[in-house]
Amino acid sequence: MELLDGRLAAQAIKDKLKLKVAGLKAEGRKTPHLAAVLIGNDGGSELYVASKVKTCAEIGYRSSLIRLEETITENRLLQVVEELNNDIDVDGILVQLPLPRHISEGKVIDAIHPSKDVDGFHPINVGRMVQGLPTFVSATPHGIMLLLEQYKIETRGKHAVVIGRSNIVGRPISILLNANTKPGNCTVTVCHSQTQNLRDICLQADIIVAALGKPEFVDASMVKPGAVVIDVGTTRVPDASKKSGFAVKGDVKFDEVAPLCSYITPVPGGVGPMTIAALMKNTFSACEERNGN
Amino acid sequence: MELLDGRLAAQAIKDKLKLKVAGLKAEGRKTPHLAAVLIGNDGGSELYVASKVKTCAEIGYRSSLIRLEETITENRLLQVVEELNNDIDVDGILVQLPLPRHISEGKVIDAIHPSKDVDGFHPINVGRMVQGLPTFVSATPHGIMLLLEQYKIETRGKHAVVIGRSNIVGRPISILLNANTKPGNCTVTVCHSQTQNLRDICLQADIIVAALGKPEFVDASMVKPGAVVIDVGTTRVPDASKKSGFAVKGDVKFDEVAPLCSYITPVPGGVGPMTIAALMKNTFSACEERNGN
Repeated sequence: MELLDGRLAAQAIKDKLKLKVAGLKAEGRKTPHLAAVLIGNDGGSELYVASKVKTCAEIGYRSSLIRLEETITENRLLQVVEELNNDIDVDGILVQLPLPRHISEGKVIDAIHPSKDVDGFHPINVGRMVQGLPTFVSATPHGIMLLLEQYKIETRGKHAVVIGRSNIVGRPISILLNANTKPGNCTVTVCHSQTQNLRDICLQADIIVAALGKPEFVDASMVKPGAVVIDVGTTRVPDASKKSGFAVKGDVKFDEVAPLCSYITPVPGGVGPMTIAALMKNTFSACEERNGN
Repeated sequence: MELLDGRLAAQAIKDKLKLKVAGLKAEGRKTPHLAAVLIGNDGGSELYVASKVKTCAEIGYRSSLIRLEETITENRLLQVVEELNNDIDVDGILVQLPLPRHISEGKVIDAIHPSKDVDGFHPINVGRMVQGLPTFVSATPHGIMLLLEQYKIETRGKHAVVIGRSNIVGRPISILLNANTKPGNCTVTVCHSQTQNLRDICLQADIIVAALGKPEFVDASMVKPGAVVIDVGTTRVPDASKKSGFAVKGDVKFDEVAPLCSYITPVPGGVGPMTIAALMKNTFSACEERNGN
């Protein structure tokens, strides 16, 4: 069994980007600038945004953090997005989700200019991904593909089973794994809460992507020996032994599944760091596009 | 075995639309208007467009047929599309594919205003379909869903195997069958040219959608007794016994597969008529949207 070390793979990507940014600087060209919008004080969102801003600094991107009150109106938020759309220095815009309930996520995502939508959530970018056109692929599925690439995992003709059909992970990763690309070219089965015989289906999988958000759902009885297991879950469960008071749990029972696998991602340190690396890659592409490359 | 009679099901949809159009007329409101752009003289394209125009007349839509020379420039075609975008009477625009090789299909599809893109090929409409938002779903997959609905086929929790991953059929039908809708909620496996053990996978299917474009590819050895089989294939093969000189063949060996099935679509007379019915439904929705409903 080999660990798919997301921290290591993400570092390799960040190192490359850092070099490229240094190159842009040396040529006197514009360097990437990511603007992050954070609304309210949700602990998880704070952590995610802080980590993105920190990564920008590490690799030499500019970043702007726009903090807004929980009570901001939808209209005012749409104005903020419009200002960022019009700011010629800003390459990528991310509005950290979830939003307060009185604001429509759809409206806000639709308002981000597709050329700055580095999260890849705008319907036009989702459609372009589905059609196999150049676009921003959203960060988590993009990160998983980069991880498979980094570890040179053979995917062609393999049977991948994706558990979960969410718009941000299950659906897009199922499409990417199925596309005529490398990595890609898997036969892909998408399972969800209505699936019958989930165990039997998982047992056929050469690659399992667990993205349902139920801690330790995938156990040893569901995994074929030699399978590759990608764990997208990050559920916080109370844990008095931790300083923070919680532990982050994946969707896979790591201890019993890992010995069966050819490769498996740990949680934390698997898909999470790759998500941020993918976002950084998208932001670099957005900047390149603006630089006219 | 019961036939999924696309002609019958399409007629039921067209009858309903006809009544609705009569209703709009009676209220003095705008009725649907479909503009079809046909380039060159491809036999298949001529037939498809003629059939769409004829259906418009049957149910009381206006239609405009814009015929253009094979040699038209891309720019001139884009101008024609722009004129149709700006024509306030036109609700739906379809540009019959394939286009001559010197014209970029992507550019032309991107140029159609999404609110008039009744073929559902614009990336923003594809993205909205993937995200489960209201949109124009492209005609063939939409037609298949309408057929399943019309025959009240239970799909929830069933295992659907889609053979083919094209942008116009395989990919979108796999997403629609997998969505949390009714019909829908299938576990879906998407197979393609790189798939290993295709027979074994098909034998697990409660529903098979054959959309690979290889005449009579699916034979009895691939179908589980009681399965529902949807045949999307329409390949013309030479046939001296026909007046036209060719016969249209599906992707399924109908004679040997049909006796195994609970339901099966014939070719012709299955998915084909539903495709046109779905296009008509989309055009009605586009008109309703313009009518402010």
